[in-house]
Amino acid sequence: MRLSAIHMLAASAAPVRAFVASAAPSVARFAGGSSGIFSGARQGLRGAVLASKARPVSRTMRMANSQRLGDPIGQMMDKTDVFIFDCDGVIWKGDSLIEGVPSVLDRLRQAGKRIFFVTNNSTKSRKGYKSKFDSLGLSVEPEEIFSSSFAAAAYLEQTRFKDTGKKVYIVGEVGIEEELDLIGVPHFGGPSDGSKGVELKPGFALPHDENVGAVVVGFDRMINYYKIQYAQLCINENPGCEFIATNTDAVTHLTDAQEWAGNGAMVGAIKGCTGVEPTIVGKPGPLMIDYIIQKYNVERSRICMVGDRLDTDVLFGANNGLMSILTLSGVTTEEKLLSPENKINPDYYVNSINDFFPFYT
Amino acid sequence: MRLSAIHMLAASAAPVRAFVASAAPSVARFAGGSSGIFSGARQGLRGAVLASKARPVSRTMRMANSQRLGDPIGQMMDKTDVFIFDCDGVIWKGDSLIEGVPSVLDRLRQAGKRIFFVTNNSTKSRKGYKSKFDSLGLSVEPEEIFSSSFAAAAYLEQTRFKDTGKKVYIVGEVGIEEELDLIGVPHFGGPSDGSKGVELKPGFALPHDENVGAVVVGFDRMINYYKIQYAQLCINENPGCEFIATNTDAVTHLTDAQEWAGNGAMVGAIKGCTGVEPTIVGKPGPLMIDYIIQKYNVERSRICMVGDRLDTDVLFGANNGLMSILTLSGVTTEEKLLSPENKINPDYYVNSINDFFPFYT
Repeated sequence: MRLSAIHMLAASAAPVRAFVASAAPSVARFAGGSSGIFSGARQGLRGAVLASKARPVSRTMRMANSQRLGDPIGQMMDKTDVFIFDCDGVIWKGDSLIEGVPSVLDRLRQAGKRIFFVTNNSTKSRKGYKSKFDSLGLSVEPEEIFSSSFAAAAYLEQTRFKDTGKKVYIVGEVGIEEELDLIGVPHFGGPSDGSKGVELKPGFALPHDENVGAVVVGFDRMINYYKIQYAQLCINENPGCEFIATNTDAVTHLTDAQEWAGNGAMVGAIKGCTGVEPTIVGKPGPLMIDYIIQKYNVERSRICMVGDRLDTDVLFGANNGLMSILTLSGVTTEEKLLSPENKINPDYYVNSINDFFPFYT
Repeated sequence: MRLSAIHMLAASAAPVRAFVASAAPSVARFAGGSSGIFSGARQGLRGAVLASKARPVSRTMRMANSQRLGDPIGQMMDKTDVFIFDCDGVIWKGDSLIEGVPSVLDRLRQAGKRIFFVTNNSTKSRKGYKSKFDSLGLSVEPEEIFSSSFAAAAYLEQTRFKDTGKKVYIVGEVGIEEELDLIGVPHFGGPSDGSKGVELKPGFALPHDENVGAVVVGFDRMINYYKIQYAQLCINENPGCEFIATNTDAVTHLTDAQEWAGNGAMVGAIKGCTGVEPTIVGKPGPLMIDYIIQKYNVERSRICMVGDRLDTDVLFGANNGLMSILTLSGVTTEEKLLSPENKINPDYYVNSINDFFPFYT
């Protein structure tokens, strides 16, 4: 039997350091002889998520073989119909599947839970992500995948953009192009403008299409001044032109060896030359959750967001009235989660989603 | 005799539209038979500049042949020892000198006024700007030119950056390189990184120099993902690494035919992937004014900032305790200045700086 742990967070006036000192090893994982059952009411816990003065307190629990009333895993499973998983840092890291994940997903499906995967990475479409899941040996349906490229298309569909007869200018990669093709919205820019520059001579103006009604900005490794200027002209000079950001993540994981500047950079560039705030369609915006609730007729309070980032995933859950679980298998350390500076607290946290079924793996 | 006008702004509870209706044509320039002498106390006017609820009221004045006590031009000249001119939109537009400017500058010098030129354009050094002034037939000293590239170097000198033995990474063009060379601070990046890309393969990390102690971000037509990522790594991973912005202008005038995305885009990109706010050394930051006051021993209240932008030039004057004049020869229209939405008011405004000497040109 492999021992594992699920952790709960609750608001408390007790400072973390004092707690750690008096109850060490409060964060020891897989340790025997630990503390027992913690049965804090969920209502009380929800309030902790955004309470800016709340200090998180960690309580570690070794689970018994049987699920007992009041144990955190049982509570969480009982209260959840839908799990929404962030991908990078939760399902995989870079190009490597996190060990044990296929079995966890199978067991959740067997238990009747509905599963979705959300990712702020807009460089792939749903179809592109399906290939990535396939290549990692994970069987998922395209409809279970909510990439921010799809979210941009879903937003344009929801707002009946096609009816305006206008076009989209893309700062971003192929994922956005593929999703816009699927909904029949004309677009240009993106990879095709990756090697364009501007010619500067007296009297020169970069011509731009006055029929662009929206600029969609996603992560773009080929960002350049031409694209920035083109986007600026559309947003500043075309009346009513929308500025849509797939997401604003500061950093992302292009490779698992370091953090890479994320779409926060591309969106920041366009904000910086227009003074306009974008509509954010990915996390932590509400669009994807509203879409899932409406399309699949699920209850908001019975959805649990599972992610590895406090300021996107957990905040996304909190802002949208969902339960949330932080997994330490990605970018957030337990130290950061439990530090007094952190004001964003999930309902639960785990080492990895393997901890959902600690006794069967 | 050519008639011209200098306009004063004062705080008033009277809405602009009502005033315009009752005193039309309040903004007519060069019109005969107009209103007389306006002798509002300067102390009262200063308060109007940043008062967020103040509504601007325009009073137009036709000047008589002689300067009379209480006339705006006389008042302004009497109270000013130093004129600080923004360049683009004030002295020139793109590559064309604004008509009459050489004569105005000559007359100011003859009247014993000290003159400086400030520009947020960091693509040229002081030396580079001297060439531009020369090519337009304007004789100025390099010491009279305060480009934001020079301001970045002045800041690094003021903070004894050289003593740290560290290097500067540049997102920007040759102006910053030339100014850093003059103060002997080692640097890299800038134009040399203009065609670099990132290679993405599993496990790949972009190596970066841990001895970079400051990233200077100026306007950069060759901005790319490599530079953004390099800057992100230095700022996020090198302890104490500074993030210095030459300026954050949303748009700039690379050519006179349209507005071009300005350094707000480059700075926005780096802010967006680091979450760090930069130290801004150009307008509207105080550095250049403090430098002038200290170096030339002039009185702050006797300095007048002359520019064509409300949110940089006039705000820069107001924030630094200077007088300010808006000229309509650049990007700001009288309509925008006098609209109820505008909360940034100069002490005076003119059609162009030719209005400083309307009777001699």
